[in-house]
Amino acid sequence: MTPGKLITLEGGEGSGKSTQAEHLAAHLRTHGIEAVLTREPGGVALAETLREIILEKKPASPETEFLLFAAARCEHIAELIKPALEAGQWIICDRYIDSTRVYQGRLAGIDPTLIAAIERHTVVPFLPDLTLMLDVPPAIGLERARVRGELTRYDAAGLEAHETVRQGFLEIAASEPDRCVVIDGLEAAEEIAGQIAAVVDRRFGLGL
Amino acid sequence: MTPGKLITLEGGEGSGKSTQAEHLAAHLRTHGIEAVLTREPGGVALAETLREIILEKKPASPETEFLLFAAARCEHIAELIKPALEAGQWIICDRYIDSTRVYQGRLAGIDPTLIAAIERHTVVPFLPDLTLMLDVPPAIGLERARVRGELTRYDAAGLEAHETVRQGFLEIAASEPDRCVVIDGLEAAEEIAGQIAAVVDRRFGLGL
Repeated sequence: MTPGKLITLEGGEGSGKSTQAEHLAAHLRTHGIEAVLTREPGGVALAETLREIILEKKPASPETEFLLFAAARCEHIAELIKPALEAGQWIICDRYIDSTRVYQGRLAGIDPTLIAAIERHTVVPFLPDLTLMLDVPPAIGLERARVRGELTRYDAAGLEAHETVRQGFLEIAASEPDRCVVIDGLEAAEEIAGQIAAVVDRRFGLGL
Repeated sequence: MTPGKLITLEGGEGSGKSTQAEHLAAHLRTHGIEAVLTREPGGVALAETLREIILEKKPASPETEFLLFAAARCEHIAELIKPALEAGQWIICDRYIDSTRVYQGRLAGIDPTLIAAIERHTVVPFLPDLTLMLDVPPAIGLERARVRGELTRYDAAGLEAHETVRQGFLEIAASEPDRCVVIDGLEAAEEIAGQIAAVVDRRFGLGL
């Protein structure tokens, strides 16, 4: 246990993660908390370099891709998450372990026991204190991402793949109810922000 | 089992691995075998990019470095080792799994159970058919590498670290005698090449 707090946002493309990360940071500011906003893969220089490699030079093997995501996370933890949490800071992170479990595990077929082993050796004890799962039907999320011109090669997969991703996130949330809260991402952004603020205040005893 | 053969060369800095790789390739040519010469980390484009990242942007965490080595190996296997072995080719590889076990496991303190798990999931069944461990006292190997101007940051570690590396290789060889053969790297290069040629001929029934 560290004195800081790690809140992660998870969900498919166009589910509103980065918008809600900004809203949540603004909400925490009203409590006098200046949260660190970060993302995965990335967040620190070496991990951002790996992000570019993953996105631009598609690895030939899904295992390679998985290990690059894991390496980027290790460095993110060592250089940013660990020191910030130990210094008592709050962190809001756009994607984290659940994206790996879902995209690499469910979709790319990486053995879940390998994913779990690497999580145990390289992520623990820096697990999220709270994970907000933003849930939207894939067709709507993809359309949102397309409008913003933010489609990556992951989005080129068919709707069925995106439905697998959605189910993956929902099943993780169902199996870890103490950590995860599912948020309906179809509401208006301000409405969702209000729901998230309420969840966070309740979970961490803020604004009492 | 694939129809090709994978021969790896292992040992500390200045133990003569790349010189002996060339000699072995020339020897195999006398048997009409055109071997593929490769190295780790590297061997294929993405893995060579990762090699540069490992050597030039020292990762903050030993786990990051370990995962980058593992990712580079995955891609090397997917793009070169697997297809070559399946096509019946012989491969001579300068460093492979034993360097990971020794440098990351013994020296950098990565949990051997994590190293073994990743090997099981990403290297098997592409384990070496034969590993030649070139053994030289660290002081001599380091001096050779220094003369060639090939010292990397790994060599900046003290002699004690290099002795740990040497012991690591020798212990692997002792525990896997069917795969590994220790070669005295203090002999003249031509003499060593002759010993390796004899080991390879006997092991694979060549030149009978």
